[in-house]
Amino acid sequence: MTSYNEEKLQHYKEKNKNRARLLIHCPDQPGIISRISEFLFSHDANIVASHQYSTDPEGGEFFIRLEFDCPELEAKFEQIEVDFQPIAAEFNMDWKLTAVRELKNVAIFVSKQPHCLLELLWEWQSSDLMANLAVVISNHEDTREMVESLGIPFYHVPSNKDIRHEAEARHKEILDEHDTDLVVLARYMQILTPEFVESYRNRIINIHHSFLPAFVGARPYERAYERGVKMIGATSHYVTNDLDEGPIIEQDIGRVDHRDHVEDMKKIGQTIERSVLARAVKWHLADRILVHQNKTIVFS
Amino acid sequence: MTSYNEEKLQHYKEKNKNRARLLIHCPDQPGIISRISEFLFSHDANIVASHQYSTDPEGGEFFIRLEFDCPELEAKFEQIEVDFQPIAAEFNMDWKLTAVRELKNVAIFVSKQPHCLLELLWEWQSSDLMANLAVVISNHEDTREMVESLGIPFYHVPSNKDIRHEAEARHKEILDEHDTDLVVLARYMQILTPEFVESYRNRIINIHHSFLPAFVGARPYERAYERGVKMIGATSHYVTNDLDEGPIIEQDIGRVDHRDHVEDMKKIGQTIERSVLARAVKWHLADRILVHQNKTIVFS
Amino acid sequence: MTSYNEEKLQHYKEKNKNRARLLIHCPDQPGIISRISEFLFSHDANIVASHQYSTDPEGGEFFIRLEFDCPELEAKFEQIEVDFQPIAAEFNMDWKLTAVRELKNVAIFVSKQPHCLLELLWEWQSSDLMANLAVVISNHEDTREMVESLGIPFYHVPSNKDIRHEAEARHKEILDEHDTDLVVLARYMQILTPEFVESYRNRIINIHHSFLPAFVGARPYERAYERGVKMIGATSHYVTNDLDEGPIIEQDIGRVDHRDHVEDMKKIGQTIERSVLARAVKWHLADRILVHQNKTIVFS
Amino acid sequence: MTSYNEEKLQHYKEKNKNRARLLIHCPDQPGIISRISEFLFSHDANIVASHQYSTDPEGGEFFIRLEFDCPELEAKFEQIEVDFQPIAAEFNMDWKLTAVRELKNVAIFVSKQPHCLLELLWEWQSSDLMANLAVVISNHEDTREMVESLGIPFYHVPSNKDIRHEAEARHKEILDEHDTDLVVLARYMQILTPEFVESYRNRIINIHHSFLPAFVGARPYERAYERGVKMIGATSHYVTNDLDEGPIIEQDIGRVDHRDHVEDMKKIGQTIERSVLARAVKWHLADRILVHQNKTIVFS
Repeated sequence: MTSYNEEKLQHYKEKNKNRARLLIHCPDQPGIISRISEFLFSHDANIVASHQYSTDPEGGEFFIRLEFDCPELEAKFEQIEVDFQPIAAEFNMDWKLTAVRELKNVAIFVSKQPHCLLELLWEWQSSDLMANLAVVISNHEDTREMVESLGIPFYHVPSNKDIRHEAEARHKEILDEHDTDLVVLARYMQILTPEFVESYRNRIINIHHSFLPAFVGARPYERAYERGVKMIGATSHYVTNDLDEGPIIEQDIGRVDHRDHVEDMKKIGQTIERSVLARAVKWHLADRILVHQNKTIVFS
Repeated sequence: MTSYNEEKLQHYKEKNKNRARLLIHCPDQPGIISRISEFLFSHDANIVASHQYSTDPEGGEFFIRLEFDCPELEAKFEQIEVDFQPIAAEFNMDWKLTAVRELKNVAIFVSKQPHCLLELLWEWQSSDLMANLAVVISNHEDTREMVESLGIPFYHVPSNKDIRHEAEARHKEILDEHDTDLVVLARYMQILTPEFVESYRNRIINIHHSFLPAFVGARPYERAYERGVKMIGATSHYVTNDLDEGPIIEQDIGRVDHRDHVEDMKKIGQTIERSVLARAVKWHLADRILVHQNKTIVFS
Repeated sequence: MTSYNEEKLQHYKEKNKNRARLLIHCPDQPGIISRISEFLFSHDANIVASHQYSTDPEGGEFFIRLEFDCPELEAKFEQIEVDFQPIAAEFNMDWKLTAVRELKNVAIFVSKQPHCLLELLWEWQSSDLMANLAVVISNHEDTREMVESLGIPFYHVPSNKDIRHEAEARHKEILDEHDTDLVVLARYMQILTPEFVESYRNRIINIHHSFLPAFVGARPYERAYERGVKMIGATSHYVTNDLDEGPIIEQDIGRVDHRDHVEDMKKIGQTIERSVLARAVKWHLADRILVHQNKTIVFS
Repeated sequence: MTSYNEEKLQHYKEKNKNRARLLIHCPDQPGIISRISEFLFSHDANIVASHQYSTDPEGGEFFIRLEFDCPELEAKFEQIEVDFQPIAAEFNMDWKLTAVRELKNVAIFVSKQPHCLLELLWEWQSSDLMANLAVVISNHEDTREMVESLGIPFYHVPSNKDIRHEAEARHKEILDEHDTDLVVLARYMQILTPEFVESYRNRIINIHHSFLPAFVGARPYERAYERGVKMIGATSHYVTNDLDEGPIIEQDIGRVDHRDHVEDMKKIGQTIERSVLARAVKWHLADRILVHQNKTIVFS
């Protein structure tokens, strides 16, 4: 593989130097959009994309994602944040403003199976996954060579149920050092502690190798084979402390038939897993996902 | 089949009595959304859904679809239209305001094959296609019984290339009489004249039984079979005077293999045709489609 | 709708008057195909399609479906059956020989929701579902008109848990009277007793409105909505005495997103249910399905 | 990436040491299957999979693919070939017998875009593509590092219309040297001469970046964008001397919408291209494809 295309990255940053995203969640009421768009217009911003969702126009919840261009964004960014606070307070908003040119720092956790990691590395190399791949952490050595050949730091941190807390202490150290925004579990086969999950709330994406809620837990392909299903699937979701019960981001399926044994299902499943995980990660990086009551709103 | 569910229809109208849709196309510039949303807020309207698309933030085209609730809409509707005109003029807008409770009048043209007509009748009966099915026109008698059993007027208007103009004169008479908003060609096998097409510009939806631009013209399944394709498709599009070249609304495909002869392809294709046409018609009825430079913007 | 196309039916019977199907399941060993094909050749039969599946060449199970043409089939049919018995005994075969021109008698059970029944009636009317639709049985009156308008007998047999046995006694009476080969539960919302299920072993096809094994049991769309899945599905399966645990025949899925409420999911689901059930019924009618250890082998 | 899993390869060869495949095409007549299966049984072979297709039972063409296990296959292979010749002659067969353990030698041609090459390398590395990747030939240097890092010979052979014959002379030299069975054009952007194509008849697989026959020729994504299609596709086919007109092996599609510009379509298309090409190559390697009258019969 060729090394990462620094030129494309600079092009992306340059192209998006004046672009920002505003994500908002608040109780619904008339006038929210009017107030926000007036605010942006008064700050010389031009809205280039907007997605809105209301759970119920009568007393429900309001969600919006806005993308806008604003000349001299870098200089004005903090002032925009300050100026928006009164509006946010008035409407009781959860909100986040992000500059598109600032790439998120991503850490990937992986165990032995490399296919999901490989897909993310590939997308990243071809500039389809816009992030800083800051670090890869594994409880095995298998993928070290592949990761380091791309110039990405690789840490081998052994982990199992007996040394979970020591391992996580080390994980946190590494994540902090790399100022990590997002943790991706690319077929990482260890359980995370509630403390760890809480510290990355809605910022840990897992890929589960079944069509949830079918086959929650271990050995989903074996159980799919036993049941004689005609389709297998994969599910990407944010991690919570209920195993495989976190907010679902994306799912997809593939056909199988009576000739497919467990090993065939695993191969067919790998292709599904890698694309389902990659889509979820890209949507997160593009600030397209809002979480509400254990469900996701994906503005795709 | 049971007769059309009048109760559901009334429920729909009641539920949507204060809901309207605003579709806008204009040159892009900062401040459009701010101006529109301020206008709606000042008229006590609450935006419940919005979709926006800009071809290019720098000097491109701007498209938006807004759905909003406004108390006492019926009484205020005309005033809102009047009040919006200065804004429309200022931004050089093409625009349209529609009241959701006012169903569009739809005429369906069909020849011998009934499957697309049947799908539309079915969707309409089960209240999934919200329209007044005003009339069915055919150059054959085959579907009369089915149509009239549902209480829908059926007109047999013979047509072929020698009597095209007489036939169309009669078509126009019928369409005018039923105040027709949309013409659906549900496998209608006659060519329309440029005058007719012009008088229903972007208001005639056709289903073509191929994955356009593959197999433009006659006998697409025969040609697909000859070519040995592994997938066949269907395309719904607005009719223009270039045969099968109008703006594409929706497409879908199905798999075929070496065992499928032309007759098998036709059967597989029928299922695709009927769903692709139904989706296009529903999107049109819900004011989800904008046309620009022979392409559609579908806010689905 | 036009009445059933008697002409097409006669054409089908005429075209297939010399065609038969042979389904076999036995322990695998070398020489089975040689023996069968030699037998057929010696009876002047020409194999026109064959599908084979072996669970494991070493001591596994062997399954085959053969379609063959044999001149004067009607006259020879019984002799072929007699002559095949020694081979069947030698290889310890479960087997079945069917004449393609003899249509199976089908009974459809339905409750209030008509969409699956409608799909089957439609396919039957357009000669895509080759069967005698012998009778429709319902615990409600809703679909009587639709069924009787096509000349199919309709029986209203009230049923609930208190009168289950009386209802089933009546069901059996009706099924026997129509010499029923296959029972299709087209959204029939009553539980069947073990005795009834046993008497139609692998001859009752149900449609479950979820992607099994997700959402076994009641209210699957409500539970899919609660869980926030991004896809919903439907599953057709043979009925056993374990609720929703019988051999799966076919599954399919459709995409949903955060905007889809339970009612939207139900509508999207209806389209999936009707096609998944229709495919399963057609495969059964064409003797394409073998059952082994609670799984299906579908030679599609 | 880790180096190729030699252990898995040996396991595959050992596991399949007694397995062979027999592909046959001949005029249809009764008794063919009987004759073949009797022959195999008399050679102690056990048929483990069979696929048959007849264009028309009355005077059509007959195609079959058989997979069988035969003890001591290596020792008996040539004798089986010799013994089968009289049968082949009697039925006027085109036929081919292959030993599964003998991997085919594959040459990949690529230009600048690496995604299809990468997919094939990936599948090969993970032992999902059972072949000897003998050599990669390119008219550019871009992919050399990636290829050589896996221990595969890479040849840079400049080519353009002025030096086509010199280039192809060099190509043939390299292909002969590696005893090449199959040439895969993994986005190779040069035209091949009729002589070259003829010398690898039905053994050159190309990936075309459109849903053929839509957008034959150059710049398909640009033309798809211009036309405003809602789906884009890719097609793998055997190369003939009619550009993009060879027998289609596999096709697939992906959805696009009004927001997708040419660059977006290319990215979406890459994912489709790589999977469509990989499937075609795997089917060819598994002897699953027969060609008849510019169409493929794929026994998948």
